[in-house]
Amino acid sequence: MSNASRTRTRRRDFLKTVAGSSAALAAASTLPAPAIASDMIRWRMVTTWPKGFPGLGAGAAHLADLINRTSGGRLQVTVYGAGELVPAFEAMDAVANGTADLGHGGPYYWKGKAEATQFLSAVPFGFTVQEQNAWYEFGGGQELADKIYRGFGCKFFSAGNTTAQMGGWFNVEISSIDDLKGLKMRIPGLGGEVMRSAGVNVVNIPGGALLTSIKSGAIDALEWVGPYNDLAFGLYQGADYYYYPGWHEPAACIDCFINLERWEELPNDLQEIVAACCRAANGTMVSEFTARNNAALNVLTSRHGVQLRHFPDEVLQELARLTKEVTGDIRSRDAMSDEVLTSIEAFLKAASNWSNLSNKSYLDVRSKMISPAG
Amino acid sequence: MSNASRTRTRRRDFLKTVAGSSAALAAASTLPAPAIASDMIRWRMVTTWPKGFPGLGAGAAHLADLINRTSGGRLQVTVYGAGELVPAFEAMDAVANGTADLGHGGPYYWKGKAEATQFLSAVPFGFTVQEQNAWYEFGGGQELADKIYRGFGCKFFSAGNTTAQMGGWFNVEISSIDDLKGLKMRIPGLGGEVMRSAGVNVVNIPGGALLTSIKSGAIDALEWVGPYNDLAFGLYQGADYYYYPGWHEPAACIDCFINLERWEELPNDLQEIVAACCRAANGTMVSEFTARNNAALNVLTSRHGVQLRHFPDEVLQELARLTKEVTGDIRSRDAMSDEVLTSIEAFLKAASNWSNLSNKSYLDVRSKMISPAG
Repeated sequence: MSNASRTRTRRRDFLKTVAGSSAALAAASTLPAPAIASDMIRWRMVTTWPKGFPGLGAGAAHLADLINRTSGGRLQVTVYGAGELVPAFEAMDAVANGTADLGHGGPYYWKGKAEATQFLSAVPFGFTVQEQNAWYEFGGGQELADKIYRGFGCKFFSAGNTTAQMGGWFNVEISSIDDLKGLKMRIPGLGGEVMRSAGVNVVNIPGGALLTSIKSGAIDALEWVGPYNDLAFGLYQGADYYYYPGWHEPAACIDCFINLERWEELPNDLQEIVAACCRAANGTMVSEFTARNNAALNVLTSRHGVQLRHFPDEVLQELARLTKEVTGDIRSRDAMSDEVLTSIEAFLKAASNWSNLSNKSYLDVRSKMISPAG
Repeated sequence: MSNASRTRTRRRDFLKTVAGSSAALAAASTLPAPAIASDMIRWRMVTTWPKGFPGLGAGAAHLADLINRTSGGRLQVTVYGAGELVPAFEAMDAVANGTADLGHGGPYYWKGKAEATQFLSAVPFGFTVQEQNAWYEFGGGQELADKIYRGFGCKFFSAGNTTAQMGGWFNVEISSIDDLKGLKMRIPGLGGEVMRSAGVNVVNIPGGALLTSIKSGAIDALEWVGPYNDLAFGLYQGADYYYYPGWHEPAACIDCFINLERWEELPNDLQEIVAACCRAANGTMVSEFTARNNAALNVLTSRHGVQLRHFPDEVLQELARLTKEVTGDIRSRDAMSDEVLTSIEAFLKAASNWSNLSNKSYLDVRSKMISPAG
């Protein structure tokens, strides 16, 4: 369907719904009366997540619901899970060509279109969630992301964050960098590139096949998300050791991408609502992962006997060196990646000083002290 | 003015403004048209901050602006800085009695009304900002705060956070708990109570007099906020040593409190807008402090030669012990404080495990590793 005919269809939809919705709103109103929608806009949101997928699919549903509620129904967003309207990784094309109006996923899923999107998701040994959100809002990240997404015909928002992930599940203990060599591991993104350069046999396996793959020995290790998601998938049944920290994704931005024409024709107040809802949804997702990872970690260790392991410093040091090589290769061949990384590095240089003095020094102290709880 | 006569005045204001605003909106509109406000609501926001006060006054202005923009002007919030409509610490009374419609401050300013509000702000050795926001949204904090604020005739929202503060400026080095005894220090809130029980002579000095007080030797030490605010006040001119971590306020919630009648008569969509804007403003304030503290810390150390000092572990251990005493006294005499602290402690117990494994272990590693920036 062309944009023009879609717009006409929409207009008819609006006309059909206005009378009904006005009456409903008026009936529900007390003094002072709510705004009466002079028009209703219906948007279709495609996502890269299965419907109801913990944290992330739930985050898409929450964002849509928040827009519907704050707009008083003037902007009605309907969510389609991965495969319902288009397959997961066609979400961006669907939004760009107008099949859908907006999407919810992760920037690095679009690295086939622009390598720089990987750095919008996460940089190994890079930002914490607090730093990444600050970079997007006060460090030039929003502008850079908009520049990249404009090339896709989309408007960009950071609409969530996984917060710090875990380093993954391993069936062998990792004592040195040599223990990684030849290991068959599922780990996507830049982290996977770094692992590959460390000699890991990096494989790609869809989420639904992870547990059987590691239980059968088809893979030796895998990285998924963190305690909340990993518990939901039962991954503790397939591996003994749960490694931390999540050096490869210390935070991972979740994107909301909107067809640029749809975005630009939106009235100002609805643009403001969408922007504010993305920021609010970002906060809610961070809080949800924080709360539920806490609870899930306790279940994993106390009920399922999961053994936590810290990657040896020597291994992490080598992974950090390889990260510099891998990202160096990308920036040397892709100017946009270089521009994004240069901005991230400048912000991180200052940010890490303050993070060390504030959050790190505080958590160091608190972990040693008695708590108010005794 | 009574609520009834205020409502009548408001109604006349609405009638005067509706025609003009509708015309303005219609003129600015493109297809599809924005909602035409059937009524306009004007709210007065009183704050405990001087107008334009970095981070906090700016946060109040940002929240008001966000509500105005997302509501398309249907809810118009005008901000009054401390002393403009009522003095800073009369903000809550002004909102409760309808002189103003909503306020922006810090929960512990209302401890004279309910001691439990102190724990809504911060608990020494308690939550980080990520944990505190998670507690409010997923740990029962919102419900407890609403219960307390309902007693004031208000609706509660967490509308910002200072993030981790610094431990303060000292004119002497602190090597043991004995070095604190007899020290004259400005430090408010629970942190002040703990310092008092450690033998500190705790004094109260308004923000504007801090620099002259410490320069003249009238006080030996003071705690204000963090690098961004402390640089703006020029506090480096008055003291040599800048201590961390901010054990007394590892995060501090900023509240938005709304007259309960005003809140309840608000149409649903505007309620949703206010709630979403508070959450979005919370995120923006956290990001602003994160970005600007980074930058300010660098200016303080590199340009002004500020000497950073870590409180000795022995001192922190004793302050943690005294915190337990001080909060124990409060909870034993005040049931609501006990209820809030019990909820905080339960959430923190799980949260701190995960924070140690995720953020702490990651920051430990990153601070030792080469960064992608080299």
